[in-house]
Amino acid sequence: MRLSQITAALGLPPPADGGDREVHAITSPAQATGNDIIFSVDARFDDAVSASDAGIVIVKKGRGFPGKICLEVDDPYLGYARVAQLFEDCTPPFGSGISPTAIIDSSATIAPTAAIGPGTVIGAGVSIGAASRIGARCVIEKNSSVGADCRIDSGVTIRYGTTIGARVIIQSGAVIGSDGFGNARHNGAWVRIPPFGNVKIEDDAEIGANTTIDRGNFEDTIIGRGVKLDNLIHIAHNVTVGEDTVMAAQTGISGSTRVGKRVIIAGQVGFVGHIDIGDDSFIGAKAGVSKAVEPGAKITGYPARDLMTMRRIEAAQAQLPTLIKEMKSLKMRIDSIDAAAYSNNTTGGKGPTTEKQS
Amino acid sequence: MRLSQITAALGLPPPADGGDREVHAITSPAQATGNDIIFSVDARFDDAVSASDAGIVIVKKGRGFPGKICLEVDDPYLGYARVAQLFEDCTPPFGSGISPTAIIDSSATIAPTAAIGPGTVIGAGVSIGAASRIGARCVIEKNSSVGADCRIDSGVTIRYGTTIGARVIIQSGAVIGSDGFGNARHNGAWVRIPPFGNVKIEDDAEIGANTTIDRGNFEDTIIGRGVKLDNLIHIAHNVTVGEDTVMAAQTGISGSTRVGKRVIIAGQVGFVGHIDIGDDSFIGAKAGVSKAVEPGAKITGYPARDLMTMRRIEAAQAQLPTLIKEMKSLKMRIDSIDAAAYSNNTTGGKGPTTEKQS
Amino acid sequence: MRLSQITAALGLPPPADGGDREVHAITSPAQATGNDIIFSVDARFDDAVSASDAGIVIVKKGRGFPGKICLEVDDPYLGYARVAQLFEDCTPPFGSGISPTAIIDSSATIAPTAAIGPGTVIGAGVSIGAASRIGARCVIEKNSSVGADCRIDSGVTIRYGTTIGARVIIQSGAVIGSDGFGNARHNGAWVRIPPFGNVKIEDDAEIGANTTIDRGNFEDTIIGRGVKLDNLIHIAHNVTVGEDTVMAAQTGISGSTRVGKRVIIAGQVGFVGHIDIGDDSFIGAKAGVSKAVEPGAKITGYPARDLMTMRRIEAAQAQLPTLIKEMKSLKMRIDSIDAAAYSNNTTGGKGPTTEKQS
Repeated sequence: MRLSQITAALGLPPPADGGDREVHAITSPAQATGNDIIFSVDARFDDAVSASDAGIVIVKKGRGFPGKICLEVDDPYLGYARVAQLFEDCTPPFGSGISPTAIIDSSATIAPTAAIGPGTVIGAGVSIGAASRIGARCVIEKNSSVGADCRIDSGVTIRYGTTIGARVIIQSGAVIGSDGFGNARHNGAWVRIPPFGNVKIEDDAEIGANTTIDRGNFEDTIIGRGVKLDNLIHIAHNVTVGEDTVMAAQTGISGSTRVGKRVIIAGQVGFVGHIDIGDDSFIGAKAGVSKAVEPGAKITGYPARDLMTMRRIEAAQAQLPTLIKEMKSLKMRIDSIDAAAYSNNTTGGKGPTTEKQS
Repeated sequence: MRLSQITAALGLPPPADGGDREVHAITSPAQATGNDIIFSVDARFDDAVSASDAGIVIVKKGRGFPGKICLEVDDPYLGYARVAQLFEDCTPPFGSGISPTAIIDSSATIAPTAAIGPGTVIGAGVSIGAASRIGARCVIEKNSSVGADCRIDSGVTIRYGTTIGARVIIQSGAVIGSDGFGNARHNGAWVRIPPFGNVKIEDDAEIGANTTIDRGNFEDTIIGRGVKLDNLIHIAHNVTVGEDTVMAAQTGISGSTRVGKRVIIAGQVGFVGHIDIGDDSFIGAKAGVSKAVEPGAKITGYPARDLMTMRRIEAAQAQLPTLIKEMKSLKMRIDSIDAAAYSNNTTGGKGPTTEKQS
Repeated sequence: MRLSQITAALGLPPPADGGDREVHAITSPAQATGNDIIFSVDARFDDAVSASDAGIVIVKKGRGFPGKICLEVDDPYLGYARVAQLFEDCTPPFGSGISPTAIIDSSATIAPTAAIGPGTVIGAGVSIGAASRIGARCVIEKNSSVGADCRIDSGVTIRYGTTIGARVIIQSGAVIGSDGFGNARHNGAWVRIPPFGNVKIEDDAEIGANTTIDRGNFEDTIIGRGVKLDNLIHIAHNVTVGEDTVMAAQTGISGSTRVGKRVIIAGQVGFVGHIDIGDDSFIGAKAGVSKAVEPGAKITGYPARDLMTMRRIEAAQAQLPTLIKEMKSLKMRIDSIDAAAYSNNTTGGKGPTTEKQS
């Protein structure tokens, strides 16, 4: 990688005449050599950055590290992400073209620049877009379409009728288009409700390893543009996830819940079905969400509540055993006061003694 | 589909002479055209049903929508399930018969009417029943048997010695017959305990995508008749799940726990091992169940408690920070009362002052 | 299996002359016949052991069951584990050698004694160690290495650059080396951060079915020697798990958290990122761990706290609704005392009435 390519990716002016050079890798301060680039996002690591052999460092505007080429940007972490993408190896893991051991239906349409790995099965009527890289041992069932520049990792299962946009990443073991969990009860037993709908994954979405997304019924389950799903997530039938929402691992969303845009959802969260989660809301780790969430709200806990309220409740819980003891002590003290009042008070004051009898 | 087939499925008399007709699809009120059938289960959607172009509607007995053919049944949701099944496409996703790319041991027995998808591997001594549909890229290891009319979706792994009944559905990515998690400790390290048992899945059970079911030890892990498991569920070794029990996504059951019949278990629930969960009980979402559950009990929470008790505790938790403040205030008031009593009371009343010293 | 092999595995003297015999199986008391071996670890099952037809029983030193050969050891459960391993069928599930349908890159190195199952895909530069057994339909991507005596079950995906030690077991559906979940935010959208690191799994570790382990960034994600992971676990990027730590199903560990040695983690636990979990600590089921954990600490709950503290809080929670009622009652009683004091006290005592006005 040339330094001039890096400055271009960061929207910075090119290196001065003769200042362009080869950059080997983006890495950590401890591992970097003189030809490597690192980044500085947290003052706690300033010493490590200073001590690093790295020749180049991405820094916040106005910051500098003596002896290093400092690429000043508004957001060094974003700059890091952009530069890291330059260094990524984007060649298909099993080479270019269609593996001779891939099993491809004759009615499928595979772009000439797409790569299909060994043992992958592609069904009737499937289309695979330009430059998409499909790993080994995937299944893409009939009438599904995968857009351009997608990355479908080894071992993914995409069931029939799924629509996938451009630049989508689906990681190993993910299942897209499984049947939703719908049953009608009859005399204690359950009668299965087959779904008539599909999954639609929009451009730039990413789906983690072993995550499952159920197909919709009558309407599609929709994963919006730019959504990022971590591993082992469950998305039930007819859920819609709005643009640029992120979800950490092992979260589950029940049927027909609508998650807004730019929502940040931590790990192991659970949502009941048929609720609306407002745009720009934040849901803390392990929250159990049983009601609609307002746009911009921050909630956590089980059951989920406003974040600050929940923090106060959690702090108060630690005092609960003490509180119970104090309550007993107060009761005894009041009993004593009442007893004293009764014996001392020759007028027979009504309040306390009445209370005591109630 | 003919209307007469639909009335037959609902147990209704056939359409009057000349009244039979072609029905295109079962769908939602908004999407339906005159040749489609919809259903009405919730009065909130009556306007949508009335406004729909649907020509036919499944309704509760005694209800009617003017201008539509109304099929009156006791339970329209159940009726919907039955009719939806009529419309389901049950053809194998990769065509009938055995795919030429399937890899089938010569000692396996495949019913002539079964369908085996591309790349699927079937081991020694396996039997596959009549009309069962196996997707692409499955593995069914040695000495397993799959009954008639099963649906094993693409990407399923069934390990050795598994017994599967009739009409079972196993969705993509599910793993049946993994080893259980058993280890003996020795000087801080762990010595693995290999299991000697299998998994048995009874008729009409359904297993969700990426769900894992561990094999038993000495006895089998058993998934009872008609059990419905959602996605990403963990069933440990030697668990038994009773008939017609349903479990929502991401629930986990530890080893040797016995779940009764017709139990309803919500999502992300966890059960410790070696407990009994009574028939017809209900377990709320995200519950942590560490004790046996009585038949018919309704529990939720972490740790799980009686549902109504838990609702009261949850409501009370919101008042906890206030309670702590009130406690402080009460204490101060009692201190003041005691102080006043001490200074005012010329007889030196014992109760309050004694309490204060304690 | 000869009895003499069993005594050798238990570190016991061989059977007396003529006392050696064939042992058929290790099983449960109820199923055992005269040629079987069982074990006794819990006095509750003494009757079952006594009543069993088993000819041989592993017992704690000093215990005996009349009429049976009693193999006395310090730890019968550990003895059971050792003997059970003798009886395990360790032949590859699809036979020895390389299946003709395996798809193996010409640059891969497969030990002559390794077994590779049907349809398994092995990439460029991969090495597979002696006597390792790879199931059907696995993918092992380029530049990964698998040590000797490993067991990789059917349907596993090992992504590029993964290093696996000796005697490692990876169960079906597990994904090793998926990308971590790293994104930088830009105007509400997310820019993906590609990872530059791998996964290293050390000797004797075991990975459960459908568990996912993300590759590290700059450094490797490390699963230490002897670690046992159950099913459906999520290990994020740059996590390190210390030697002999065990984790039950559906637990999730966020990025860069360091789990110590010999830690015992129950099921459905969640850990935030960037924290240290001390050696020999214990984490209870469903705990939500948001802070560092001291070595040897025992914690549980959401949020996680010291185990005994949490048990007291849980017990106290049950009393919370009552506490709120009692608080109201106490307040009324104090109000009455104050009112009585005010009306009775001709000197106009200041304390209580002042309090009341505040």
